[in-house]
Amino acid sequence: MSDTVNRQILLVEKPIGKLGPEHFKMVNGKVPEPKDGEVLVKARYISLDAANRAWMHGATYRAAVEANTVMAGGSIAEVVASKAPGLAPGDIVFGDTGWQDYAAVPAKHLTKMPKMEPMTHLLSVYGIAGLTAYFGLLHVGKPREGETVVVSAAAGSVGSIVGQIAKIKGCHVVGIAGGKDKCHWLTSELGFDAAVDYKDGATFKALRAAAPKGIDVYFDNVGGDILEACLALMNNRGRIACCGAISQYDGMPSAHGPRGVPGLIVVKRLIMQGFIVMDYMDQSAAALADLQSWVASGKLKVQEDVIDGIENTPKALIGLLAGENRGKRMVKV
Amino acid sequence: MSDTVNRQILLVEKPIGKLGPEHFKMVNGKVPEPKDGEVLVKARYISLDAANRAWMHGATYRAAVEANTVMAGGSIAEVVASKAPGLAPGDIVFGDTGWQDYAAVPAKHLTKMPKMEPMTHLLSVYGIAGLTAYFGLLHVGKPREGETVVVSAAAGSVGSIVGQIAKIKGCHVVGIAGGKDKCHWLTSELGFDAAVDYKDGATFKALRAAAPKGIDVYFDNVGGDILEACLALMNNRGRIACCGAISQYDGMPSAHGPRGVPGLIVVKRLIMQGFIVMDYMDQSAAALADLQSWVASGKLKVQEDVIDGIENTPKALIGLLAGENRGKRMVKV
Repeated sequence: MSDTVNRQILLVEKPIGKLGPEHFKMVNGKVPEPKDGEVLVKARYISLDAANRAWMHGATYRAAVEANTVMAGGSIAEVVASKAPGLAPGDIVFGDTGWQDYAAVPAKHLTKMPKMEPMTHLLSVYGIAGLTAYFGLLHVGKPREGETVVVSAAAGSVGSIVGQIAKIKGCHVVGIAGGKDKCHWLTSELGFDAAVDYKDGATFKALRAAAPKGIDVYFDNVGGDILEACLALMNNRGRIACCGAISQYDGMPSAHGPRGVPGLIVVKRLIMQGFIVMDYMDQSAAALADLQSWVASGKLKVQEDVIDGIENTPKALIGLLAGENRGKRMVKV
Repeated sequence: MSDTVNRQILLVEKPIGKLGPEHFKMVNGKVPEPKDGEVLVKARYISLDAANRAWMHGATYRAAVEANTVMAGGSIAEVVASKAPGLAPGDIVFGDTGWQDYAAVPAKHLTKMPKMEPMTHLLSVYGIAGLTAYFGLLHVGKPREGETVVVSAAAGSVGSIVGQIAKIKGCHVVGIAGGKDKCHWLTSELGFDAAVDYKDGATFKALRAAAPKGIDVYFDNVGGDILEACLALMNNRGRIACCGAISQYDGMPSAHGPRGVPGLIVVKRLIMQGFIVMDYMDQSAAALADLQSWVASGKLKVQEDVIDGIENTPKALIGLLAGENRGKRMVKV
């Protein structure tokens, strides 16, 4: 790879249905020059997230991604040149640098990260995934010892951490994931009390058996039918932390929402609350201290799924949307 | 009417579709004898509520009503004979005495009420309706001065009070109701800033025009399409107080829920919270003090819809479900 070539992956067309490799194209662009207040960064690890797909639908908590531009995405990157105070070559930062080798980014849009080994932990347990799990479970779901916590997309980057934190807090933890292997991994390796394979068919029955006392906290990563099944099993005064709706991202938006809204919400006095991890960043130091102590003591296992080569980024996202990853997926540039 | 006859209205069959007069039958029963710990009460005003219909579907926060039994329902009643300490003939109580002249009820299931004129206020502004409006709006919706509050079934017993309290708290208040007359009444008599007639067709557009800054608090009495329209217009960090789902009560349960759940809940960080007024009864004294001072100062107008004769109770409920009432509907026995 030459230092004067900037490999870039463009979103050439916004998908209407399922996302495919035909929606992307790799081109060789120029390495940009940073302006005043900007830094030039070189991406080291690009984060893959279901949210990447959601951004293609339209504006969410960020502007929509547009066709024929570099695909948006967060990364852990290294500062190569700086025209901004506070950042120097060699510094490690996190920011939306897009799917490309190099980006010139305003320093104010970057977060300086500590240097640590492995660097990948900055995208998994100490990154958005870990903090999303932490704040969503503890500040929104608010589980109490002995309660039953259910998490969907449980083998994913966020879900795998949610379940482990819930165990640390003394809860009965049920994970919902796709496939026998993932489910076995959740119970045998991560310490979940039970796992439900949604590809197995009878999700509602399996969930009811796995959560015999009902559900007190449901951490929802998927929406759709699984949310509907959980709503029916929620206990009075249960909390649903709405983190995402993976089931709704890749394809046409659903024509309707889950049954039981608002009927079951009223009768059971449920709270459904949406959250975005960015809203909690003022409390991230305390969260990171907890996460670090749990990792150090072995209570929290970190699972990463690192794919090599920027050219594989589209395939990595498509596979993530199909549920093929286990733990935090990222691309080593 | 003889004092030895107890007129009773039975639910003869649980409705599958719409509730009709054929589902009820009036019979002459006996005046019961109170046992130890019970009192004999004579109903004075029977409360009509959309919840009466919801109880026919199955267990909610109370057991389901069953066919061929006296229809359940709350009333303001007078103690006629007492075998319980703390209650004496002439006392006024509230409780589920059913649709009948006389009932023998355990004293612990009755709430002793103050004597006031008009007595009907014990069922409207100082009863379940007023307290539901008060706690649902202030403790669940938590409106701040200057925010936009939308309430559905706004001309009903709860909605008409919700909107007025929101005005007292300095909010921009929009009511959704059925028909021009009701809408005109909301703005001209009750001080709502705007009213949207859902029978007029373009509810979403009308609502958007009436709430140009978006919705901060939506007090939902109806569920269904109106909830869906409000979800789309909610502002970030908006609150939806889920009080009921009238649109879903009279007929088959809906096959699906509103679009935007959970997608919009996540992106906008919304809170949807169900509540039951009974959960707040430990705080009722403070609520009643507020309500009384607002009524006394003329800031809160009390609207009641009193129908004469116990034989008209079925018709009164059927009409309430069709939205024909304005304010709190009750039957004078």
